[in-house]
Amino acid sequence: MKPKIGFMGLGIMGAPMAANILKAGYPLTVYNRTAAKAEPLAKLGAQVAASPKALAQDAQIIVAMVTGPEALYELLFGPEGAAEAFGPEQVFINMSSVSPSFTLELGKELAPTAIRFVDAPVSGTKKPAEDGALVILAGGNRQRVQELEPLFLTMGKKVIYCGKTGQGSMMKMFINLLLGLMMEGFAEALNFGRLGGLDLEAMLETVASGAMNAPMFQVKAANFRDQKFQAAFPLKHLAKDAKFVVDTAYELGAPVPAGQMLLHLYRLGVAQGWGDEDISAIAKVMEFLSPPK
Amino acid sequence: MKPKIGFMGLGIMGAPMAANILKAGYPLTVYNRTAAKAEPLAKLGAQVAASPKALAQDAQIIVAMVTGPEALYELLFGPEGAAEAFGPEQVFINMSSVSPSFTLELGKELAPTAIRFVDAPVSGTKKPAEDGALVILAGGNRQRVQELEPLFLTMGKKVIYCGKTGQGSMMKMFINLLLGLMMEGFAEALNFGRLGGLDLEAMLETVASGAMNAPMFQVKAANFRDQKFQAAFPLKHLAKDAKFVVDTAYELGAPVPAGQMLLHLYRLGVAQGWGDEDISAIAKVMEFLSPPK
Amino acid sequence: MKPKIGFMGLGIMGAPMAANILKAGYPLTVYNRTAAKAEPLAKLGAQVAASPKALAQDAQIIVAMVTGPEALYELLFGPEGAAEAFGPEQVFINMSSVSPSFTLELGKELAPTAIRFVDAPVSGTKKPAEDGALVILAGGNRQRVQELEPLFLTMGKKVIYCGKTGQGSMMKMFINLLLGLMMEGFAEALNFGRLGGLDLEAMLETVASGAMNAPMFQVKAANFRDQKFQAAFPLKHLAKDAKFVVDTAYELGAPVPAGQMLLHLYRLGVAQGWGDEDISAIAKVMEFLSPPK
Amino acid sequence: MKPKIGFMGLGIMGAPMAANILKAGYPLTVYNRTAAKAEPLAKLGAQVAASPKALAQDAQIIVAMVTGPEALYELLFGPEGAAEAFGPEQVFINMSSVSPSFTLELGKELAPTAIRFVDAPVSGTKKPAEDGALVILAGGNRQRVQELEPLFLTMGKKVIYCGKTGQGSMMKMFINLLLGLMMEGFAEALNFGRLGGLDLEAMLETVASGAMNAPMFQVKAANFRDQKFQAAFPLKHLAKDAKFVVDTAYELGAPVPAGQMLLHLYRLGVAQGWGDEDISAIAKVMEFLSPPK
Repeated sequence: MKPKIGFMGLGIMGAPMAANILKAGYPLTVYNRTAAKAEPLAKLGAQVAASPKALAQDAQIIVAMVTGPEALYELLFGPEGAAEAFGPEQVFINMSSVSPSFTLELGKELAPTAIRFVDAPVSGTKKPAEDGALVILAGGNRQRVQELEPLFLTMGKKVIYCGKTGQGSMMKMFINLLLGLMMEGFAEALNFGRLGGLDLEAMLETVASGAMNAPMFQVKAANFRDQKFQAAFPLKHLAKDAKFVVDTAYELGAPVPAGQMLLHLYRLGVAQGWGDEDISAIAKVMEFLSPPK
Repeated sequence: MKPKIGFMGLGIMGAPMAANILKAGYPLTVYNRTAAKAEPLAKLGAQVAASPKALAQDAQIIVAMVTGPEALYELLFGPEGAAEAFGPEQVFINMSSVSPSFTLELGKELAPTAIRFVDAPVSGTKKPAEDGALVILAGGNRQRVQELEPLFLTMGKKVIYCGKTGQGSMMKMFINLLLGLMMEGFAEALNFGRLGGLDLEAMLETVASGAMNAPMFQVKAANFRDQKFQAAFPLKHLAKDAKFVVDTAYELGAPVPAGQMLLHLYRLGVAQGWGDEDISAIAKVMEFLSPPK
Repeated sequence: MKPKIGFMGLGIMGAPMAANILKAGYPLTVYNRTAAKAEPLAKLGAQVAASPKALAQDAQIIVAMVTGPEALYELLFGPEGAAEAFGPEQVFINMSSVSPSFTLELGKELAPTAIRFVDAPVSGTKKPAEDGALVILAGGNRQRVQELEPLFLTMGKKVIYCGKTGQGSMMKMFINLLLGLMMEGFAEALNFGRLGGLDLEAMLETVASGAMNAPMFQVKAANFRDQKFQAAFPLKHLAKDAKFVVDTAYELGAPVPAGQMLLHLYRLGVAQGWGDEDISAIAKVMEFLSPPK
Repeated sequence: MKPKIGFMGLGIMGAPMAANILKAGYPLTVYNRTAAKAEPLAKLGAQVAASPKALAQDAQIIVAMVTGPEALYELLFGPEGAAEAFGPEQVFINMSSVSPSFTLELGKELAPTAIRFVDAPVSGTKKPAEDGALVILAGGNRQRVQELEPLFLTMGKKVIYCGKTGQGSMMKMFINLLLGLMMEGFAEALNFGRLGGLDLEAMLETVASGAMNAPMFQVKAANFRDQKFQAAFPLKHLAKDAKFVVDTAYELGAPVPAGQMLLHLYRLGVAQGWGDEDISAIAKVMEFLSPPK
């Protein structure tokens, strides 16, 4: 019999992930701060909890997918917070993107509840979330991660075991650093070519024809063509991830010179008001830094 | 009947490109400063010219594939230089990587010979050169580029028309900027993950499973595993290309903040003595900048 | 009658600052985690407290001068922490370098004790601390800062009122950002000149003769001449300050592109083991990044 | 008897320098591309030459002070260029800011004329030029430099011997790198403080009270107060110098990470149309990169 799942956070990512759990036949209760976002899931058959605590009281496995440490902290330890109902028979899976050090800290704060804690952020954005094709980056007890694999595979196509608690978050930092650098590199190179008189289609064809042809370039090409940047992964979230990378790198002594540049440019995009657009709107930052037309 | 080709420059790239022209049945004369490098081609049936001038006297289409503007200048205008024999019935194709402004300058200097000039650098490194799978980035008269397509397709799988003379070089700058940024990003992210305790294989699997999975990461992964960086594309050549990008960006007013970081890091790799290793040896630069083990 | 002062933290900066308070005739109790460092002050006539709490019980004004937020937190809220003894009749002055956001947080945590809180980091390093020539950057209630001026002027030559609580820390970030950028710029330019064949003395004379001639360049020149970098201000502390700047800039949306480079280079110096040397040992970082001799 | 001087280039710097030579009693002929700029000097008693060649025919010592290599090249080798009249009895002093490699190249091109060549750029901007208080950075034959000292001291307060030909230009690169980094650092820190709520006057007072207090900060403070940036040293010229630094550093293998950032930011200022304002208008670049008010 499938365990009862409680899912908190129904944003761009969380909503389709929760829907996929439900479709796979798990009993599901959901909670979202803005209650309206729970309605589509309720229509699909999910229960809607009145508070994080109520959700936690009724679930064997509690999953959180929110936009960062502050939101997560609020859900767990705020008024009617989920942690009040946590106990040793339950599992808490944080799938939100946070820093490794935050994850370790969180593990300590959850220790008194004796809940089993798994750190499982994801690689992939809106489309893979809808298709159940995310990659799950799991950190924590290896056996526990294996036991959770059927649940993870309702949301993702693969589970990668990353090491002990905190290493899921570390892997997420790693992959989002690469994602950010590639996105920025793509935008910087296309803008450079544009100013040098190259045709956008010829540039895209050159990329598509060679060894740099990553799927993300194919996916994002349309945004560059149309100069429309509807968020699959909001720019402000990548700015936040870049900050986590710089923080983590500082602790480790890891050189991240391009990562720091990334932080500068994405933070600038947020300051200019483009935080809710897609990460590919870094193209607007590059144009902003260019000679006016 | 196929035109007679003269090919100058038989390095990592030039040697297999010339071999592919020969295999396609074109009459071929070759020249290389270090004569020994011409022997394998002679065995395949190529003529070997005693000087660039001698080569040019005997060819309808002259191709150059050398490591930069200095080497190219020497071949064309040095003692017994090819340009002395250039005339209006011939075509000169520069496939070497140079800056757009150098290409324009070169066009002016060749004008008195009345030779028809095509600017056609390539995207791709050693393996695609051997397989005849390069992407040819051609700038110049559009009709002339079309006429040359059969010749180009002996060396490459595709010809992308980039615009007037100089725009082939501009496209090459564009694609190598992206290449460099992706290579550096890959190395920086892997080094960051390593210092954070992640397993190399788990990181590579995460990259391979998601939207960032470019063919180049698959190709270069072995170098990271073995910590061996035999040159498919020497690091010093990418340092040179990064300098061309920064020079060109300065003229255009194009912002290349990550491109400048690239120049800094690749030039540092050359200074440390890793210029003849592969561009993926930027991994050694990242480790050099990290806490000693 | 002069108020009783409790001074916590007797490092490079704290020891001479406390000594100057004592010399000015204030009754003084001191505390340092490593008790031996309190002995020279005991000889000068200071009382030595057994714990931060004991110190706070016996003082009207409590001053802290330690190396960062962790050390400060420990003194205040650790076992036998000073905050246990804080009350509404007392003033607590934090002169340690911390971020503005930490200062605001600290203000909130101290609120229940009702102690009056002043935020007063300093500009100046070892020598000005010894000479009582620091510049005091004070944030908090304006009248309270004025009342404390006689005490501040035992340690410093000037008090600059920076605004409400937290703004002293902000001013400290500002001035240390400038300090760091100038120190790095001096080292980068001297290293560039050295590699270009210029004589160190000729370069120093050129600096000394023009509008860039800041006193700090005169003070640090000897370190560059002797290649000895005994800490007046340890490199690791500037790395920490650079991190505070980047953190604060992220919150503000302030562009700090050079500040981020500063963080990268100073953190690299710490990773190489030069953290306890002077900030001018950034010269060693520049040489490390240069071609081997 | 004083030698006859020919002075070419009467811009912000050249005009007062030429005036000071004249005031010291040297017979002076001047030339400027825009003839109107020669009028004030004619009123002071200078001869005005019709062409660079005419000027060179009539002078024992020819001085050039123009805005860069292109302008200098034109004066020397353009139509009616000065070099046509150069001979072994004359001295040519280039005081314009150019790269060391350009200076070496120029030396070679002048060799056939047998003129004696001295490389003597200056440190200092408009005000020191007017006051005869520049610092002369001389490269070339040491004895010749000494013989020219009386002439140099009409324009400057000090001559610093920098080494053989080209080393004057190298020293100029060195000092302008430091100048640029300090100017950018000042603007970046003031902008950071502004966004953090600090008062401009309090920040300026903090700088003025400490070891970072360089004369240039005093001089430029007024521009920050008034938000007016009338050029003492145009921003576009510092952008050009930053490019020379990056070019020279690339050849030397010298790490100039902050210098590259400088190039990025100053070039951006030129692209935004602020090239003719003062170097302190980098403040506008920092504001441009900040959240809109």
